[in-house]
Amino acid sequence: MAENKNKKAEKRAIGAKDASNNKKRSNISNNASQKKQAPKKNQKYDRKPNQKQNGKVNQDRRPKPKKQMPEKSVKIAFLGGLNEVGKNMTLYEYDGEMILVDCGLAFPEPEMLGVDLVIPDFAYVEKNKDKIKGIFITHGHEDHIGGLPYLLKNYNIPVYGTKLTLGLIKSKLEEHKILDKVKLNEIKPKGKVQLGSFEVEAIHVNHSIPDALALAITTPAGVILQTGDFKIDTTPIDGEVIDLSRIARLGEKGILCLLSDSTNAQRPGFTPSERTVGESFERLFPKADGKRLIVATFASNIHRVQQIIDVAESVGRKVALSGRSLENVVATAAELGYLRVPDGILISIDQISRYPHDKLVIITTGSQGEPMSALYRMAFSEHRRVEIGNGDYVIISATPIPGNEKTVGKVVDELLKRGAEVVYERMYDVHVSGHACQEELKLMLSLTKPKFFIPVHGEQKHLQKHAALAESMGISPKNIFIADNGRQVELTKRKMTQASDVPAGQVFVDGYGVGDVGNAVIRERKRLAEDGLMIISAVIERETGKLVAGPDVISRGFVFVRDSEKLIAEAKLVAQIVIDECIHDGFIDWGVIRNRMRDDISRLLYDRTKRSPMVLPVITSV
Amino acid sequence: MAENKNKKAEKRAIGAKDASNNKKRSNISNNASQKKQAPKKNQKYDRKPNQKQNGKVNQDRRPKPKKQMPEKSVKIAFLGGLNEVGKNMTLYEYDGEMILVDCGLAFPEPEMLGVDLVIPDFAYVEKNKDKIKGIFITHGHEDHIGGLPYLLKNYNIPVYGTKLTLGLIKSKLEEHKILDKVKLNEIKPKGKVQLGSFEVEAIHVNHSIPDALALAITTPAGVILQTGDFKIDTTPIDGEVIDLSRIARLGEKGILCLLSDSTNAQRPGFTPSERTVGESFERLFPKADGKRLIVATFASNIHRVQQIIDVAESVGRKVALSGRSLENVVATAAELGYLRVPDGILISIDQISRYPHDKLVIITTGSQGEPMSALYRMAFSEHRRVEIGNGDYVIISATPIPGNEKTVGKVVDELLKRGAEVVYERMYDVHVSGHACQEELKLMLSLTKPKFFIPVHGEQKHLQKHAALAESMGISPKNIFIADNGRQVELTKRKMTQASDVPAGQVFVDGYGVGDVGNAVIRERKRLAEDGLMIISAVIERETGKLVAGPDVISRGFVFVRDSEKLIAEAKLVAQIVIDECIHDGFIDWGVIRNRMRDDISRLLYDRTKRSPMVLPVITSV
Repeated sequence: MAENKNKKAEKRAIGAKDASNNKKRSNISNNASQKKQAPKKNQKYDRKPNQKQNGKVNQDRRPKPKKQMPEKSVKIAFLGGLNEVGKNMTLYEYDGEMILVDCGLAFPEPEMLGVDLVIPDFAYVEKNKDKIKGIFITHGHEDHIGGLPYLLKNYNIPVYGTKLTLGLIKSKLEEHKILDKVKLNEIKPKGKVQLGSFEVEAIHVNHSIPDALALAITTPAGVILQTGDFKIDTTPIDGEVIDLSRIARLGEKGILCLLSDSTNAQRPGFTPSERTVGESFERLFPKADGKRLIVATFASNIHRVQQIIDVAESVGRKVALSGRSLENVVATAAELGYLRVPDGILISIDQISRYPHDKLVIITTGSQGEPMSALYRMAFSEHRRVEIGNGDYVIISATPIPGNEKTVGKVVDELLKRGAEVVYERMYDVHVSGHACQEELKLMLSLTKPKFFIPVHGEQKHLQKHAALAESMGISPKNIFIADNGRQVELTKRKMTQASDVPAGQVFVDGYGVGDVGNAVIRERKRLAEDGLMIISAVIERETGKLVAGPDVISRGFVFVRDSEKLIAEAKLVAQIVIDECIHDGFIDWGVIRNRMRDDISRLLYDRTKRSPMVLPVITSV
Repeated sequence: MAENKNKKAEKRAIGAKDASNNKKRSNISNNASQKKQAPKKNQKYDRKPNQKQNGKVNQDRRPKPKKQMPEKSVKIAFLGGLNEVGKNMTLYEYDGEMILVDCGLAFPEPEMLGVDLVIPDFAYVEKNKDKIKGIFITHGHEDHIGGLPYLLKNYNIPVYGTKLTLGLIKSKLEEHKILDKVKLNEIKPKGKVQLGSFEVEAIHVNHSIPDALALAITTPAGVILQTGDFKIDTTPIDGEVIDLSRIARLGEKGILCLLSDSTNAQRPGFTPSERTVGESFERLFPKADGKRLIVATFASNIHRVQQIIDVAESVGRKVALSGRSLENVVATAAELGYLRVPDGILISIDQISRYPHDKLVIITTGSQGEPMSALYRMAFSEHRRVEIGNGDYVIISATPIPGNEKTVGKVVDELLKRGAEVVYERMYDVHVSGHACQEELKLMLSLTKPKFFIPVHGEQKHLQKHAALAESMGISPKNIFIADNGRQVELTKRKMTQASDVPAGQVFVDGYGVGDVGNAVIRERKRLAEDGLMIISAVIERETGKLVAGPDVISRGFVFVRDSEKLIAEAKLVAQIVIDECIHDGFIDWGVIRNRMRDDISRLLYDRTKRSPMVLPVITSV
């Protein structure tokens, strides 16, 4: 069941304001009559996108009929990734043709009880399945690729991505046993793909995973640059700085609209280079003299893993991996040439007992304190191979994602109690973000000089802050749109208008079930989680109305039964009274019995315990 | 049911190490033979506590028999507040007499499903109820007074606290209808209470609630200073700086042991004065020109409320309160003279519609994003009186307590979407902590010069960091003890030894039930929360083994039943097969039927859905 939670905030994003800035923005209208010029100060952003770069699109060269023919327009529909961190998915439409960008998953909120993961609602894809020419993936993080197996199970859409991204997607499709039916197309930075009226150019960007892309999407209506997740790293581990010159060139030619990563829009300054983390390792590893090093990080941060391996090599330690996702990603990255693993340095986690502590580095998952992760199991003595003690030096090379602070804190406390030294939180610069901070975002805006700007990838506070940054650089508030999942904008060379909303929402995946757990089931789980349940069973003879068995009581998650005999007896008595009162002269209204039993027993239990367990009468007639 | 979770880490705290410091500490032993002198550099902390200050305790003046008579010793047992934030409770014992300090509650962890609050296990109190002379309360925060009603319901223990603290306790006892049976004794800063061999002196400290105390507990074995929660505020709102001169004087005379607040032990520097927040309000309130001001803060932070009222008065705005706890605390504080409310400034929340936005300040609860709080209800349009829009300027005058980051973020995002300006997180210095940072902790250590040091009130990382601070100031690691709930230390003038553990743990309060929800019930709730349940009911004739009704299926929180008819039919079929196979020639093993039905249907459901709902067979015989 799809939960379309976004309707609520429908008209609010438009004209929304920011704490630091009072002026109206995003004041775009639905009617085509609005033809005001942008304010003078924004003239420089008001260039027409140059169509020449797209050889196949040359309709513009014909003399224009005056006003009869509508302007060419491109639509952008947001299927996920706004007002949330996760399940990024964007749809572009031009003249009846469509392409998708990314298809991510989100991790469930704590109140989504029992849900394994959340994917976008594909209702709008279903409606337009014959129009969609392909899906472009910016990079291999779960919030950009995690929804793909569920999409590709049902729709035959060609996938475009870089080598590493496709490698990570392949493992996913294999797991879901659909690899053979999916067409994967490798693209390279600077490469272009023409799909119908869309020309999509891949542009290398820096991020916390290699081989990440921005996409320049050229349509007859203009060029749209979607940055993907990015940062500007002038000393990256793989030697490839974000392709700023290509971005600058596109900006010179004219970019109609910029969609840019807002994750760090609240953070001033520049995100430090990934290389600074390696320098911290170089300082820290020798401090762990005589101890076993355990470094926890994100499995997909291959540059981080590379730096750990490099420093381990330089200090003469072997490296073991713990955590399935880490082993998979390292295998894929090494096979595809994204990770340089010196011969003989990698040992199996089963072999670590053969080496002294000071000859070992264990790289592990669990930097977010995830309860099933390798680091968690180490901390709570549930790991098969690694027992933490005062001979361990643990580095958590990550900062907690909002919401995970407490679980990470718990793991740190357990490690400390066991006598380990622990480097965590912002101690010693052992982590940098993969996302651009304010100065980088401003640089992106100044290079691209977009006419229109849509901050994406972030919560409301990030989007508003990013919008305020753009405004501070001279983009008119009218040309900035704070969107939401389910929103759609229509862009021409002159104006941005809000088009009709499209279906978008969240679909819960629970076990094999996709969408079969919805709000109703979650509400029941919530009720059961709070106060448990009580079952009252009774068997009544249909002919006579005689109670032939029961009432009996079963309870779970409500009270400790052995200590609650009196309460259970009272519940049985109430059930008996209900049965007695509802059966007259052989006439039995089963519905009334069940309802009254539920109500009367619920009331009794609340009076006695101030709890509201789910009461389930099981009345059988024989 | 009491959960004694602390046994696990039993021997680990001793000899624990800190990431920044490698040396052993807390190396105290259980056997009395350890008589080593403290290292030379600690000689200055090695003074004998001066007994003269305690007039009634003069046994020490007698000539000492040589070694036959054991040294006088005082024991400290930790019943709560260590390796956790919350439910502080400490027990002191001297010569068969006992006093308690504080009796707080903790808020449930997310995994404690349905639990309302957590209180200390009172098993050790029960065992010693006749020895306990009284309970001293350091201040009126929930983590220091919240467990009191549950304690005082069962034990007749006189309570000692300052006027405001007692005022807040009174409201609690009234709610629990036990106010008349409790003896409340007001103490004043600098006042002393003699209970048996204990002389307890109240010392004024600064904190985020007025009228907070440190306690100097004098016994014939020496003086123990328990700081309570404290900070050093040299410009406090009530004009009373922490009584450093008294603390210094006690230090000069000789303090045997210091128990000091570790909450902010990881933060360098000094905690800013509460007054700086008022200065921020003075700058910010005029910025909200034309807008309604809404300020969210902790209900108990009366100095914060005072400053909001003061600045509101100066800019000509009326003040309304929203949130029951806030209204209660403000009423109590105003009545007792801790809050100065100018005539006519306070209006009811029901009257706000009569005033223009720019003449209003609403003070509200919900600074932690709590789902039932006033601010949450405002953000999600569930508040009876306050609808948030672009005419609102919201200040969240608090920082999220670890674990609440995400809920606070959600509320901020909703407020922003509705067009409000929001000041949150560390923007504009609208919050200061109530706890001492490193420089203050070091000052406390240097003034008290304790022979022994026990960091209290904090998680493991805070305790270890505080211990490292003490060590850096020259206290020998041997004289520092990182304790845990359930630990007990015995102090004489010469040595600190670990005494036998005492029962300590957590007791869950759920509705009216205290302790009737334990780990077994929580496990059931967890199972139900994850995957729901399925009930299979059937009625079998006892004589013949004939199935006379069912099998029927009820499910809750498992799947959306209407979409799962096939699965339900399969489950019924499996139940039918089990019944058929288990009944032979009229012989029925009811236990076997139930077990097999549970197992076989569980397996079916997992195979089909990869979920494990609780399967409850209800088999009735007639």
